[in-house]
Amino acid sequence: DCPLTVIAGPCQLESADHAQMIAGRMKEVCDAAGAQYVFKASYDKANRTSVSGKRGLGIEEGLSVLAGVRKEIGVPVLTDVHTEAQCAPAAEAVDILQIPAFLCRQTDLLLAAGETGAAINVKKGQFLAPWDMDNVVAKVESTGNSRILLTERGTSFGYNTLVADMRALPRMAQTGYPVVMDATHSVQQPGGQGGSSGGQREFAPVMARAAVSLGIAAVFIETHEDPDNAPSDGPNMIQLDQMSALIETLMAFDRLAKANPINL
Amino acid sequence: DCPLTVIAGPCQLESADHAQMIAGRMKEVCDAAGAQYVFKASYDKANRTSVSGKRGLGIEEGLSVLAGVRKEIGVPVLTDVHTEAQCAPAAEAVDILQIPAFLCRQTDLLLAAGETGAAINVKKGQFLAPWDMDNVVAKVESTGNSRILLTERGTSFGYNTLVADMRALPRMAQTGYPVVMDATHSVQQPGGQGGSSGGQREFAPVMARAAVSLGIAAVFIETHEDPDNAPSDGPNMIQLDQMSALIETLMAFDRLAKANPINL
Amino acid sequence: DCPLTVIAGPCQLESADHAQMIAGRMKEVCDAAGAQYVFKASYDKANRTSVSGKRGLGIEEGLSVLAGVRKEIGVPVLTDVHTEAQCAPAAEAVDILQIPAFLCRQTDLLLAAGETGAAINVKKGQFLAPWDMDNVVAKVESTGNSRILLTERGTSFGYNTLVADMRALPRMAQTGYPVVMDATHSVQQPGGQGGSSGGQREFAPVMARAAVSLGIAAVFIETHEDPDNAPSDGPNMIQLDQMSALIETLMAFDRLAKANPINL
Amino acid sequence: DCPLTVIAGPCQLESADHAQMIAGRMKEVCDAAGAQYVFKASYDKANRTSVSGKRGLGIEEGLSVLAGVRKEIGVPVLTDVHTEAQCAPAAEAVDILQIPAFLCRQTDLLLAAGETGAAINVKKGQFLAPWDMDNVVAKVESTGNSRILLTERGTSFGYNTLVADMRALPRMAQTGYPVVMDATHSVQQPGGQGGSSGGQREFAPVMARAAVSLGIAAVFIETHEDPDNAPSDGPNMIQLDQMSALIETLMAFDRLAKANPINL
Repeated sequence: DCPLTVIAGPCQLESADHAQMIAGRMKEVCDAAGAQYVFKASYDKANRTSVSGKRGLGIEEGLSVLAGVRKEIGVPVLTDVHTEAQCAPAAEAVDILQIPAFLCRQTDLLLAAGETGAAINVKKGQFLAPWDMDNVVAKVESTGNSRILLTERGTSFGYNTLVADMRALPRMAQTGYPVVMDATHSVQQPGGQGGSSGGQREFAPVMARAAVSLGIAAVFIETHEDPDNAPSDGPNMIQLDQMSALIETLMAFDRLAKANPINL
Repeated sequence: DCPLTVIAGPCQLESADHAQMIAGRMKEVCDAAGAQYVFKASYDKANRTSVSGKRGLGIEEGLSVLAGVRKEIGVPVLTDVHTEAQCAPAAEAVDILQIPAFLCRQTDLLLAAGETGAAINVKKGQFLAPWDMDNVVAKVESTGNSRILLTERGTSFGYNTLVADMRALPRMAQTGYPVVMDATHSVQQPGGQGGSSGGQREFAPVMARAAVSLGIAAVFIETHEDPDNAPSDGPNMIQLDQMSALIETLMAFDRLAKANPINL
Repeated sequence: DCPLTVIAGPCQLESADHAQMIAGRMKEVCDAAGAQYVFKASYDKANRTSVSGKRGLGIEEGLSVLAGVRKEIGVPVLTDVHTEAQCAPAAEAVDILQIPAFLCRQTDLLLAAGETGAAINVKKGQFLAPWDMDNVVAKVESTGNSRILLTERGTSFGYNTLVADMRALPRMAQTGYPVVMDATHSVQQPGGQGGSSGGQREFAPVMARAAVSLGIAAVFIETHEDPDNAPSDGPNMIQLDQMSALIETLMAFDRLAKANPINL
Repeated sequence: DCPLTVIAGPCQLESADHAQMIAGRMKEVCDAAGAQYVFKASYDKANRTSVSGKRGLGIEEGLSVLAGVRKEIGVPVLTDVHTEAQCAPAAEAVDILQIPAFLCRQTDLLLAAGETGAAINVKKGQFLAPWDMDNVVAKVESTGNSRILLTERGTSFGYNTLVADMRALPRMAQTGYPVVMDATHSVQQPGGQGGSSGGQREFAPVMARAAVSLGIAAVFIETHEDPDNAPSDGPNMIQLDQMSALIETLMAFDRLAKANPINL
């Protein structure tokens, strides 16, 4: 088993300088900790709670910034796609296309993403059971693409609340594909602030550690140098200067977990 | 308050003859019962559980069939749209564009639909609280379109199960827009049969009646002359020849409810 | 099918005068509306959120007050029991013993209650499925007592929230026993105010009407002349002087529902 | 922080020999792994799904067997109490009185247990939020007893399913009291086999490990030499001869977690 991969970055792109600053800093942190690093950011927040929420740089400028991160910082890059038409251009700029949770059952989007040949990270919908992802996997596989990752990001639990079921991680791993824990969005409180989503930033390291102890492939953590002033997901992003200590600890749990694999 | 509107039809289009047969029969049933009738069918099932599930006629043939129903049978027609590009052509063929529940937070789709000027029926996501629809409404309203309907179709309740919270109906009505109860999909068991969704057809009339007793604007019921052999949603569609008795009963509850309005 | 029974009264007993005032007023209201009436009040609130919440008159004085209501007002009386030892004395003072929802799986309590020969109203636990009540029924039946009622009072739905699944009513009716809708507690927000439970009084009539439209045997509604100053459950009790209009409306829905029975 | 305590034993007592066999074996396992050990078994299963489920030895013989384990094997002993009257005699025979989850809001039971001066382990109800336990703690503290433990055993999640929210562990730890993860019952499927509860034994080690990685005080695991033929909770008990490897692994995670404490 490989060491833990850390997928991290700001929720949405702000500028080329900002993206490279975070990517550069996170690469240092992950190199020091022995983790592989993947930069993550969105060029468009297509499903903000409110129509007035900031959506980001847009696809053209955004993909250019993401390609710049890949070239200048030398790290793999992940971004999310929202329509079939976005898949091919995004796959030229980045390494991993991510299917947003709300869209994880949209057949055409899964097929278009799969057909690019890029790696595909599908977030499990808040409305799906872990075993429902078997059908989602089959949609991507039908394109001949088997570079698939599956992400847990919490399940609907009453109103404006998510819960992360740890059983989902080994259950999704039974597909044979790497499993990712999204520690940021699983502690989101969707719509919990009326016009935007709330979150419980203090629980993101809790979720990350519990999941890493089960021997998962990757952890997904959004980070920002000033979360309280970030354009989106501020309430659940981790401060950039706290990432080093967090990743170091997670790597210790990862080594112990990989030495003691769980097999259902 | 107007009498109850019945939105009914097969889950997916099969042929022009089939669509007109069902629309014609339902129009008779609704005319006899004093209900307004809207024909509903999908030209594409874009989020089937499995990649091998039948998806329907496709947009070109499908819209032509829907326009035919409108012209030949003389009833308003509703269909669901899945991408921004589908909105304008669909709005030429039908009267009401429906936003699928999984897509109810996709800002661009809501805006594109709103901009057609057609009536827009937004299904509340299985992952949303009733009050979260206030933000969804504001997205459509931002296009200047206030011909909006809001539909309850059940909320995630553990795995492979939905629950319909009756409080959602008067709460969504506080937006000032008409509220629809989708009695068919609120008794769906998503993914409950492994490669397809299960359902509890016997509970659809239960949900419809409870909701109508609260004075809602419309009820949404999928119907088919042979549900067990329908290409999708068979387990929760009502048999066509049982619709007459069901609608008659619902109209009696509607009259009583409209005479005794609930105001939160 | 008999006309709707209304089980109503204050959450907890305050004094003999207060109990008889409410019982007398509710009897007039129900007589006028054609409903059978059962007085309900608790002599002890054994599971208050906080240790400092008021618990009521206690069993000795409480049962004496309840027996007084039965004798002076001439109505059947229901109260809840919390231990085996309480069952026999309570069964002498009242007509219906109620098993609280948290205790609905406590075998010895169910058996002791059943053995009194009194009618037994079991509230479905917030943690049970409707079909789980089949086993609860069998526990009471094992005592030879088949005077059983089953009450829906909401199911856990995330934290501090309940949801009432309308499907539970016809499903529990399949046991053959009368089904009661507790419109008061199904809109409770357990623990929602920190040291006490919150509630959404405005939704109690909504729940009652939706349930009555399905043809249930009885509705359970707590009422008080001044809910905001009641010692418990104030946030979800209905004001006494609003009960007349509410019961009148419910009886109209009951007549329509009983004329159009639902059979699963 | 102390090393992890392991609370383990069969779901219900079968005989003195059987109890001492399991206690003796578990003591060896825990001594070898550096864990403190507490023997757990029930003398009465007071809330079986079905009236015909086996309930155990009863209080008199049961307490005698438990006292025997304490004396002969030399380990602390935990058992659950169901009525106020059981608290005092149970507190003479065992070290820790456990309040069952369904009963965790029953004020008199909490007070009677607290008044014995024994340590009190309260299981969080399947219907409670983690923060609701603050009020439960206050009830026990009101007796002057502050030897309190709080146990997570899963929360209602739709029908016949529980989910364990990892956030509950650090949140309950904010009370200042030791927190226990019940890895056995949090993977129970209540009522999931019709007349008895189902379970997912393979997930118990998953839950235990995730929780231990967060630095909890104790883990609760039911074990039996032949779970498939045990009188209760067979589907989720761990085989006795697998406990040694499981505890060894958990202790490695415990050491790492205690060296890296989480503070909310």
